[in-house]
Amino acid sequence: MTSRDGYQWTPETGLTQGVPSLGVISPPTNIKDEDKDGPWDVIVIGGGYCGLTATRDLTVAGFKTLLLEARDRIGGRSWSSNIDGYPYEMGGTWVHWHQSHVWREITRYKMHNALSPSFNFSRGVNHFQLRTNPTSSTYMTHEAEDELLRSALHKFTNVDGTNGRTVLPFPHDMFYVPEFRKYDEMSYAERIEQIKDELSLNERSSLEAFILLCSGGRMENSSFGEFLHWWAMSGYTYQGCMDCLISYKFTEGQSAFARRFWEEAMGTGRLGYVFECPVRSVVDEKGGRGVRVTARDGREFVAKRVVCTIPLNVLSTIQFSPALATEKVSAMQAGHVNMCTKVHAEVDNKDMRSWTGIAYPFNKLCYAIGDGTTPAGNTHLVCFGTDANHIQPDEDVRETLKAVGELAPGEFGVKRLVFHNWVKDEFAKGAWFFSRPGMVSGCLDGLRERHGGVVFANSDWALGWRSFIDGAIEEGTRAARVVLEELGTKRDEVKARL
Amino acid sequence: MTSRDGYQWTPETGLTQGVPSLGVISPPTNIKDEDKDGPWDVIVIGGGYCGLTATRDLTVAGFKTLLLEARDRIGGRSWSSNIDGYPYEMGGTWVHWHQSHVWREITRYKMHNALSPSFNFSRGVNHFQLRTNPTSSTYMTHEAEDELLRSALHKFTNVDGTNGRTVLPFPHDMFYVPEFRKYDEMSYAERIEQIKDELSLNERSSLEAFILLCSGGRMENSSFGEFLHWWAMSGYTYQGCMDCLISYKFTEGQSAFARRFWEEAMGTGRLGYVFECPVRSVVDEKGGRGVRVTARDGREFVAKRVVCTIPLNVLSTIQFSPALATEKVSAMQAGHVNMCTKVHAEVDNKDMRSWTGIAYPFNKLCYAIGDGTTPAGNTHLVCFGTDANHIQPDEDVRETLKAVGELAPGEFGVKRLVFHNWVKDEFAKGAWFFSRPGMVSGCLDGLRERHGGVVFANSDWALGWRSFIDGAIEEGTRAARVVLEELGTKRDEVKARL
Repeated sequence: MTSRDGYQWTPETGLTQGVPSLGVISPPTNIKDEDKDGPWDVIVIGGGYCGLTATRDLTVAGFKTLLLEARDRIGGRSWSSNIDGYPYEMGGTWVHWHQSHVWREITRYKMHNALSPSFNFSRGVNHFQLRTNPTSSTYMTHEAEDELLRSALHKFTNVDGTNGRTVLPFPHDMFYVPEFRKYDEMSYAERIEQIKDELSLNERSSLEAFILLCSGGRMENSSFGEFLHWWAMSGYTYQGCMDCLISYKFTEGQSAFARRFWEEAMGTGRLGYVFECPVRSVVDEKGGRGVRVTARDGREFVAKRVVCTIPLNVLSTIQFSPALATEKVSAMQAGHVNMCTKVHAEVDNKDMRSWTGIAYPFNKLCYAIGDGTTPAGNTHLVCFGTDANHIQPDEDVRETLKAVGELAPGEFGVKRLVFHNWVKDEFAKGAWFFSRPGMVSGCLDGLRERHGGVVFANSDWALGWRSFIDGAIEEGTRAARVVLEELGTKRDEVKARL
Repeated sequence: MTSRDGYQWTPETGLTQGVPSLGVISPPTNIKDEDKDGPWDVIVIGGGYCGLTATRDLTVAGFKTLLLEARDRIGGRSWSSNIDGYPYEMGGTWVHWHQSHVWREITRYKMHNALSPSFNFSRGVNHFQLRTNPTSSTYMTHEAEDELLRSALHKFTNVDGTNGRTVLPFPHDMFYVPEFRKYDEMSYAERIEQIKDELSLNERSSLEAFILLCSGGRMENSSFGEFLHWWAMSGYTYQGCMDCLISYKFTEGQSAFARRFWEEAMGTGRLGYVFECPVRSVVDEKGGRGVRVTARDGREFVAKRVVCTIPLNVLSTIQFSPALATEKVSAMQAGHVNMCTKVHAEVDNKDMRSWTGIAYPFNKLCYAIGDGTTPAGNTHLVCFGTDANHIQPDEDVRETLKAVGELAPGEFGVKRLVFHNWVKDEFAKGAWFFSRPGMVSGCLDGLRERHGGVVFANSDWALGWRSFIDGAIEEGTRAARVVLEELGTKRDEVKARL
């Protein structure tokens, strides 16, 4: 099945919109017009991992659940396109067993043996290419690359003599040490200013490229505290970051994983769904008459509870009644800063499989790695850009090709590009959440608050691996549990028996 | 409520059996004799974390489930006794956010802010006391302690130049690199023999005490590969081991956590239970007539499926019909090696709160740390012994007091001892699972195999944090999912509607 999402470019076809994915659901709905009123126990808005988890948990627990999704596919900001049998990860990609919620699901769905390492340094160029200007490259071993980034990250994170352990001992409880607020309020740029004299030029370039890779933003609008949170979640080490952030992916792609949730929910016989159904408004009816969700096309659905998994940057496009609380509205209006560009390139140089590169700050794609070998025997590179030097990869493919080429000039020809423009995607308006300075301390609690019959759940305001697939599952699990507690899982016929 | 399990000693009362616990369930059953035949969808044997997880998942998913437990309490090998408002952990204690299954549950039950650090080096003696003989002590800073153990553990684990990463890249898939089998088959003693010339005396003593603390066994019968598995799960670092193995515990004790599972299951109205009901036999009736479980007192119960969570070392006390497969039987007969002794001591020296100590090999308790401050203002020390120099702490309290005192002679008087003798416990026959050399490669798959209508689930054969609370929840989750898949979660009345 082909999704309307995503782009592909080859020299032969030029740029085309829409790529195949296991995540496309067909037919787009399983309910007839006359059945649309259910009655539904719960409506889940959004079929990303958060919504899928909530839907799965609720349907398994016996609730009649209606899933509304704006797109033609499941997965939200994490989905894969299988092209010629090879999976390209369009958004969220990497998972690790130190990410509790996603790993619990991976184990439960018996996919713990279905992961592959992204890095493979067993043959080929086997080096790191650092470009701090368009006219030269520095080549290093991967050991030297690790040492460079480890050194730089230790300087960046070491605000307390213990690389963050003292100021952030419980990463799920960010303000356990109240003074952590000051790091939350500090930008990347402000932190770099404090340590700039300790950093070599190579350290600084690599560090900035790495932390911008994490935030997808700019030095001035990315929160240092949010990076420390990622760092703490990763075990306060560079190696932990590499392991958790960018090392292990699904051999068959994210959408193969997402389908497990989908299929389990479908198997209960309690799931109704409507895809290609963007929501216009959510109205909590007075007098406990339920929550009414109206689609852009005017269709209306009512349930006892709504789990709204719409991302932060999109929430302001929905009308809520009664109006949302101030904290939520101000966070929605500010939005998060992640304007990451992620571009896959299939390149005709087998030896690039063991290559990694940084081209910063001059290039529109600043960080890339060899991520696989395609069925044609080419190398698959995954390349990242950020808001600091932004590119819309679909708008001028020559510019995109140039930015890919500048990562390692003269080393390859590009046979294919695959990408999703998350910034222009009206249902995402950016990539994974990354906090502005002060945003987490100011808004996190408010974002997590429910609103009458509406439970808000999204990785954007998870406590642990916020922004990650793990955080989405954390939040979907939380939302389902809230609903379970309120609607109850006791069934009368059973109560009578025991 | 007071459990029959556990012992307490004070100078005033002497040794008494039975300690208070939040985990005691009263009344011991909620089913009447005439209702005992259910009909039950599932019988879960054992109310430790594995059985509680399976029971919770199954009841929430709509299955009428009967929990049979030999003891008077939930929690199995992990339970706490609250004495004068202070929790003593009688068995499994520590948890971490890198342990996926337990952390998922901690988050789901909103207990992520309910943890306390075991170590507190903020005041007092603030040192590590190493005793390699009964006549002297070496004192070190905790930084020097960390350096000593880090150095020793790196030598111990570094079989491949990458501290185990190369030979065990996917810890959930232990034989992904087939050569790992040779480490699985290697004993601690054999590995020490390979590196003994690289180790200082202090390194060797500390290392042996630490790895025996992990195995609870002897140098000759503990598998080096199993330790490498713990090490890999912890992120291949000493700090990761400390974080995951011995750093964070529930402020209110394990039994407060176990009750969450219990209460959720009870809240469904689908849970029947019988405590103080040891099982004698499990018979898979011919012709799909279900599985019959017979208690020692002759009561019989029948269900479509049985989830048997009885630990490895106890399995051979149950009669199974038809007979179990050879692999399972041979593993049951061999048993695991963990004969750990864990003794809590309340001591009248406040300054010991920041103390850690090793007394090895001469002492019957080889590893201890300051673990808290009691309501009386005394220090709570938790002390461990292993099968290498075994003590039955209830048999001769003077000997136990002597072993506690030998950890730091002259530093304190003992006001209270609290412990559970897991070795003599007929429903445990040892502490957490630790593999003999070759046992995991030889038996793990067999232990995980189902047997007709009986699904075997226990932390003893988990894939990830085997032996841990996390592994118990992993296994309970797996077992519930197997049953869900087989019995189905679709309800006819709903099917008709959609």
